[in-house]
Amino acid sequence: MIKTALTDLLGVDHPLVGFNRSPGVVAAVTNAGGFGVLAASAYTPEELDAQLTWIEQQVEGKPYGVDLLVPEKFATGDPDNLIASLRAQIPAEHIAFVDGLLAEYGIPATTPRAGHDEVSASINPDGAQALLDVAFSHRISLVANALGTPPPHLVDRAHQAGVVVASLVGQRKHAVRQLDSGVDVLIAQGTEAGGHTGTIATMVLTPEIVDLAGDKPVLAAGGIASGRQLAAALALGASGAWCGSVWLSSHEDITPLPVKEKFLAATSSDTLRSPTRTGKPARQLRSAWHDAWEKPDSPKPLPMPLQPMLVNEAWERIDAAAEQGHEGAKKLESFFIGQVVGSFAALRPAADIARQLVADCENRLAELAASTTNG
Amino acid sequence: MIKTALTDLLGVDHPLVGFNRSPGVVAAVTNAGGFGVLAASAYTPEELDAQLTWIEQQVEGKPYGVDLLVPEKFATGDPDNLIASLRAQIPAEHIAFVDGLLAEYGIPATTPRAGHDEVSASINPDGAQALLDVAFSHRISLVANALGTPPPHLVDRAHQAGVVVASLVGQRKHAVRQLDSGVDVLIAQGTEAGGHTGTIATMVLTPEIVDLAGDKPVLAAGGIASGRQLAAALALGASGAWCGSVWLSSHEDITPLPVKEKFLAATSSDTLRSPTRTGKPARQLRSAWHDAWEKPDSPKPLPMPLQPMLVNEAWERIDAAAEQGHEGAKKLESFFIGQVVGSFAALRPAADIARQLVADCENRLAELAASTTNG
Repeated sequence: MIKTALTDLLGVDHPLVGFNRSPGVVAAVTNAGGFGVLAASAYTPEELDAQLTWIEQQVEGKPYGVDLLVPEKFATGDPDNLIASLRAQIPAEHIAFVDGLLAEYGIPATTPRAGHDEVSASINPDGAQALLDVAFSHRISLVANALGTPPPHLVDRAHQAGVVVASLVGQRKHAVRQLDSGVDVLIAQGTEAGGHTGTIATMVLTPEIVDLAGDKPVLAAGGIASGRQLAAALALGASGAWCGSVWLSSHEDITPLPVKEKFLAATSSDTLRSPTRTGKPARQLRSAWHDAWEKPDSPKPLPMPLQPMLVNEAWERIDAAAEQGHEGAKKLESFFIGQVVGSFAALRPAADIARQLVADCENRLAELAASTTNG
Repeated sequence: MIKTALTDLLGVDHPLVGFNRSPGVVAAVTNAGGFGVLAASAYTPEELDAQLTWIEQQVEGKPYGVDLLVPEKFATGDPDNLIASLRAQIPAEHIAFVDGLLAEYGIPATTPRAGHDEVSASINPDGAQALLDVAFSHRISLVANALGTPPPHLVDRAHQAGVVVASLVGQRKHAVRQLDSGVDVLIAQGTEAGGHTGTIATMVLTPEIVDLAGDKPVLAAGGIASGRQLAAALALGASGAWCGSVWLSSHEDITPLPVKEKFLAATSSDTLRSPTRTGKPARQLRSAWHDAWEKPDSPKPLPMPLQPMLVNEAWERIDAAAEQGHEGAKKLESFFIGQVVGSFAALRPAADIARQLVADCENRLAELAASTTNG
């Protein structure tokens, strides 16, 4: 057992947070003695309610949390007619580019999932409100914001409910603002992480944020998928690790199997930071999708949430076709993933991943202690 | 004392390698119980001979090494007339761009240092030979190549002389080739490092290379300027750290004071990877120099060694003017540095930096051991 400020604060056995959009992963991490966090922004409010209900049935009172995307800068629309007013801002050139790309690779049309635009549009303070209402109606222990300083109403509401507020930071100056806003836990996310990241590496960013945060726990995120890397995060002064990518090598993760197979085959050089999926730079597996957007005549990606509104249906079609074995779809197929993708050897149960991370970390710390002598 | 495969191999007290172009830093690191490595490619053969003689007088038999730049890919010239044949390959457009940039900032002309082109041209297998001859005429313990697989003649000559061969790697596939070439020590250099780097972060790259290298020691490089970061490198499985940037905050470092002052004021966000200085992507402090090269109409940087032949005299003029307090020169001024530049608080003696790195690392490992309980 490794005791840190984080294990004390959250009442968990291990300094390991598992972030994922799959409820099965969240429950498995919490049940293994870590702390599972669900990516709520992947869902409509109704879907989120069902997911959190299911998670609570699995974890039998053990703690878990949710993560939202509440950006500080975003395209705005008419609050009374949010989705239509946002959709009207997408240029015809961009729609034609995405349609043309799908046609070039022969991707078949599918019936769009209901609530698609609702999910995309939720990536702003107004749209996130409905998800927050659902989250606070459940017994969450932590709410995290992955895109900047949480708004005051979120911090106040969480603290009144006894819920810990966490937020991800990629630069020291952002952390200063977030501490001012009343955040309880900072997550120092390095450039090697999957999803939205800055340019500073975990090795450099973590101690910077630890020194700034004083008594508040800091988690390291980015590049942590093994016990040695968890031990390194602790050595840097973090009170634990926020792991995202590693769970995409779990059976419980809901990412389509063709994507997971690409992950298993990938090296640590095969990712890039690209705004073509969400409108902000996010690390993902490089594929033919990114090659197409990088051509000189291709349109520039739109701001958040217009870019996800532009591309999410396309990704649903790519995912569906890839699952049918469609070769063109497999070339385009991708998802958010960090540089640790190069370490994925096989798909495993999430509980096994969590247990091995913790056990290998404890072993590594014991080895290090043995190599140090009074001299 | 921390005992590792590296401290055994090199016969040093601490798993800390200090890489720098300043002989004063190299001697200080070795005398503090670490292992100093001189950047030999900064010098003509005659200069290198004098530097190594001076270092040996300071370290009184304690071990040290040298680092060379021997790229695998390079522009070639006529071996009988190397410098002139290389210089003839530099386009007039590039010369005009650099001249125009210096004029725009009002940088005065200076008398160029003798041997300038010789130093630039040495960045190829033929040119490096004279530096190697000098290095092997001294009692070096290690020779490192910072740019790819060392040529067979270098490995053979080193091993016949009982000299350890090290090389820097930024990707797993490069490490495979280097191990095949007979390298004794691999240096896993992450993207956060100063100088020539790839895109994979130290946190991800180090365990990948450790797993590949088997019994051969691996050093972590990039993002290591404090005891916590050294402890993290060891946690990742490295046998020590190869530190470069941190010594640029030492008194002994020969970098012009105006550059060091910019380093002290910089944050970890103020670096970039740019090929505008050497012809290959190298991390350095962002300045007006890089802004100028990034403009759409600016020429594309040339390959190594043509780009350093193009710009080295310009940098000599910028350095000289900045040391005189010239405001335009201070705007252009820059040097190779990693993301750890954001942690520089003051200039200190190199020996103090080395001692604190080691002491803080040992303290951090002791704290970690104390936080782990059998549970």
